Amino acid sequence: MLREISPRVRRILPSEQENLIRCAARIRTELQQGVKKPYKDLIDVSWGDAHRLGMKPLSFVRQVIAACLYPALLQSGRLPIDAQQRAQRLMAECEGGSVGSYTASRGIPHVQRSVTDFIFRRDGGVPSNPENIFIFNGSQCALSFVLKLLAQGEGLPQTAVLTPVPTYQTFTMALAEQGVMMVPYQLCEEEGWALKVEELRRVLRASRGHCSPRALYVINPGNPTGHVQSRKSIEEVIRFAAEEKLFLMADEVYQGSVHGEESVFVSYKKVLFEMGQEYSDSVELASFHSVSKGFMGECGLRGGYVELVNLDPAVMGVAHMLLSTMSSSAVIGQIALDILTNPPQPGDPSYPSYSKEVRLSQDTLVRNMRLAQEVLGGLPGVSCQVVWGGIYVFPRLHLPPRAVELAKKQGVEADLLYCSRLLEEAGVCAGPGCEHGQKEGTYHLRFCVMTPPENLEEMLRRLKTFHIRFLSEFS
Amino acid sequence: MLREISPRVRRILPSEQENLIRCAARIRTELQQGVKKPYKDLIDVSWGDAHRLGMKPLSFVRQVIAACLYPALLQSGRLPIDAQQRAQRLMAECEGGSVGSYTASRGIPHVQRSVTDFIFRRDGGVPSNPENIFIFNGSQCALSFVLKLLAQGEGLPQTAVLTPVPTYQTFTMALAEQGVMMVPYQLCEEEGWALKVEELRRVLRASRGHCSPRALYVINPGNPTGHVQSRKSIEEVIRFAAEEKLFLMADEVYQGSVHGEESVFVSYKKVLFEMGQEYSDSVELASFHSVSKGFMGECGLRGGYVELVNLDPAVMGVAHMLLSTMSSSAVIGQIALDILTNPPQPGDPSYPSYSKEVRLSQDTLVRNMRLAQEVLGGLPGVSCQVVWGGIYVFPRLHLPPRAVELAKKQGVEADLLYCSRLLEEAGVCAGPGCEHGQKEGTYHLRFCVMTPPENLEEMLRRLKTFHIRFLSEFS
Repeated sequence: MLREISPRVRRILPSEQENLIRCAARIRTELQQGVKKPYKDLIDVSWGDAHRLGMKPLSFVRQVIAACLYPALLQSGRLPIDAQQRAQRLMAECEGGSVGSYTASRGIPHVQRSVTDFIFRRDGGVPSNPENIFIFNGSQCALSFVLKLLAQGEGLPQTAVLTPVPTYQTFTMALAEQGVMMVPYQLCEEEGWALKVEELRRVLRASRGHCSPRALYVINPGNPTGHVQSRKSIEEVIRFAAEEKLFLMADEVYQGSVHGEESVFVSYKKVLFEMGQEYSDSVELASFHSVSKGFMGECGLRGGYVELVNLDPAVMGVAHMLLSTMSSSAVIGQIALDILTNPPQPGDPSYPSYSKEVRLSQDTLVRNMRLAQEVLGGLPGVSCQVVWGGIYVFPRLHLPPRAVELAKKQGVEADLLYCSRLLEEAGVCAGPGCEHGQKEGTYHLRFCVMTPPENLEEMLRRLKTFHIRFLSEFS
Repeated sequence: MLREISPRVRRILPSEQENLIRCAARIRTELQQGVKKPYKDLIDVSWGDAHRLGMKPLSFVRQVIAACLYPALLQSGRLPIDAQQRAQRLMAECEGGSVGSYTASRGIPHVQRSVTDFIFRRDGGVPSNPENIFIFNGSQCALSFVLKLLAQGEGLPQTAVLTPVPTYQTFTMALAEQGVMMVPYQLCEEEGWALKVEELRRVLRASRGHCSPRALYVINPGNPTGHVQSRKSIEEVIRFAAEEKLFLMADEVYQGSVHGEESVFVSYKKVLFEMGQEYSDSVELASFHSVSKGFMGECGLRGGYVELVNLDPAVMGVAHMLLSTMSSSAVIGQIALDILTNPPQPGDPSYPSYSKEVRLSQDTLVRNMRLAQEVLGGLPGVSCQVVWGGIYVFPRLHLPPRAVELAKKQGVEADLLYCSRLLEEAGVCAGPGCEHGQKEGTYHLRFCVMTPPENLEEMLRRLKTFHIRFLSEFS
């Protein structure tokens, strides 16, 4: 009987957000039933899910996929010629000409090549090999896959991964699920959530002896922090990983969303290869990307990849074998990935509209980010580091001692209390800092700004009113 | 560094089929390059992948999904009204109205209800609860999920699952990946691959002491055997599971493909609930289904579910939590699942064409199955049990001793030698019995017949010629 559950599974902690999700579902139902509330609808900015928040999909993506699914559309005259051609090309790469067939376990070779061409262009000519590209049902599956490769079995010291704090919860739950220990390193809020190598060194030293730290996980641009690493910072991290023989896991799913004026995205791969052979031939790196985030926002289609660099050929062999135990990933997600990495080019019929839609999405993000920081900056008891990238803001809440005490009595973190009240009283669902990890005694709030401006404006209005009332209630 | 790999990962054995796949890829390339071969193309019947083998998708499925992806099609006047309405209904059930959003982690509630309604109808009124339906990227993911729940951690006796021999390799690899031991039970070839409870009892007794057998896995209709269990046989298995307190894993993905004249599919759930409260209130059951197999054949879209019955509420709680560590499954696969479980009804505009396409597919399967068995029955040194369900035939090869000796010298199983030669000399890729497990000293061949008749006819012609030549070479 299934009474006893594996300790590996038990280790996965319940998500604080689960309670908020349940509460949000209840409020939504009550609103539908006509229960009177001080707000007419619920604004849920707790997910990094652009379409859920009302952003529109890119037409070209949807046209190509619709034609692949229902080729009769090719004769309809309703699709741009380049969308038709792309669909025909991709269908020809599917077994039996159908997106309904399994693909090779690492993905459609043609899409792997689109990915490597993208990486080659992005990194200014650093070579990329299709053999190193593994396509999954999203970057989370790719992360779990790499953790599975990493995790040592029973009897050995527990494998550990250096993990930023704050981070996003899906990653820490994936660690637990794979039986991998988290060695937390603190990002420096005062310096815009920068990653400090001294901190890495400190926690690595402290961890040795009671676990086996084998990898360093970084997420750049940051979730939830919005920090974008400089080339110098990336160099330092790579040097540290090389010295300590750590495997580098670079989560770069927000690479398409860098909006600070002075910041640019530079990939770990590019920096690694520009640091010379001493590094480029030896440091093991996994870099992740996805169709879910940024301007594409296709979370529901499930498409992401990992590029594995400098792995031992024996390990690569195991990686291939491990993948062969899994069914291939969703073909529709693979097609979205093909378009993300090989978008319409100048001169193509869809180029003007594709570029316009991407720009609109990016402009919205930049404007929203500015607005959110302005409003937060004007609130008493709130401080917010400048956000340079990603799709979230993560302000610090300086909560009144009486609110902190009440939360303590209720056995919850003070920012969870804050979020529960914000949800109940203002119909705004945002994520509490405790879900992401934070320095003890500090409190935060995470919300996604990838939403039409009017939605964000309304959300910020409600937050402001609630916040002032909350402060005065507990002052 | 990633030099050492987890023993859990190492335990996954290389697939015999991998070599055949590589060889098939090489032959395909050579044919493209114009290398002369005794055949003009490669026929790959080793996969259970209908579209790869040239079967056509169901139009209604593709119309609905295309419209969900690209709603501009709703105004095109090119889609039947019920396809439009279904698309609108499903989009309304997606967050933000987009199939690009994450869904709830167990799947879209509306689709869960379509699944429970389907089960209710299929099982003649046995109730089904949407809370027990978990939707995944295909049934393989669902199986891995259940195995993860089942697997006990380090330090405890290794969890084991009673598993049929022959079975299909993806399942045994999933067992290895989850660190679960396989306790093989032999199906009885002489009785049409029937499942014998005495055999279950024998292997269970023998296994106790060196592992912890917690579950019994059955696949009905069988893969690769094509056996369809009678109600009486299912009752016996349920009684055995109840006595021995084993969790029942019923893989029923071929439930839509029963074609023997005297056999019908009866679900484990239905039988369980008709055996009275003594059983229906206590036996833990997981039943799996998928959009990949049978007449839908949408392997590439990734959609499947498991229904969990009689699980301890605490275990259900853990199941929910475990799922929340994963991103929701592909929305397109969920939509296909909605159509599989809630197809067009009499009176709907698409009903005639949908039914016709389904019937065509099923007629093809029945005719192909008959033809394959006829041809195999006429071959010397081949015997084949009658196939009642599923999409494969699994004939036994009585190979000449000299062929068996040669294989031994080469360090491979004799049926792998046979398949390698069949591939090289006749351009036909079929699966060797050794990949599926078989009684020592017996040899088999698995191939899928879900393909247009002319394709199967050509494949059987080549098989026949090759087989005669092979026998005479080694006689």
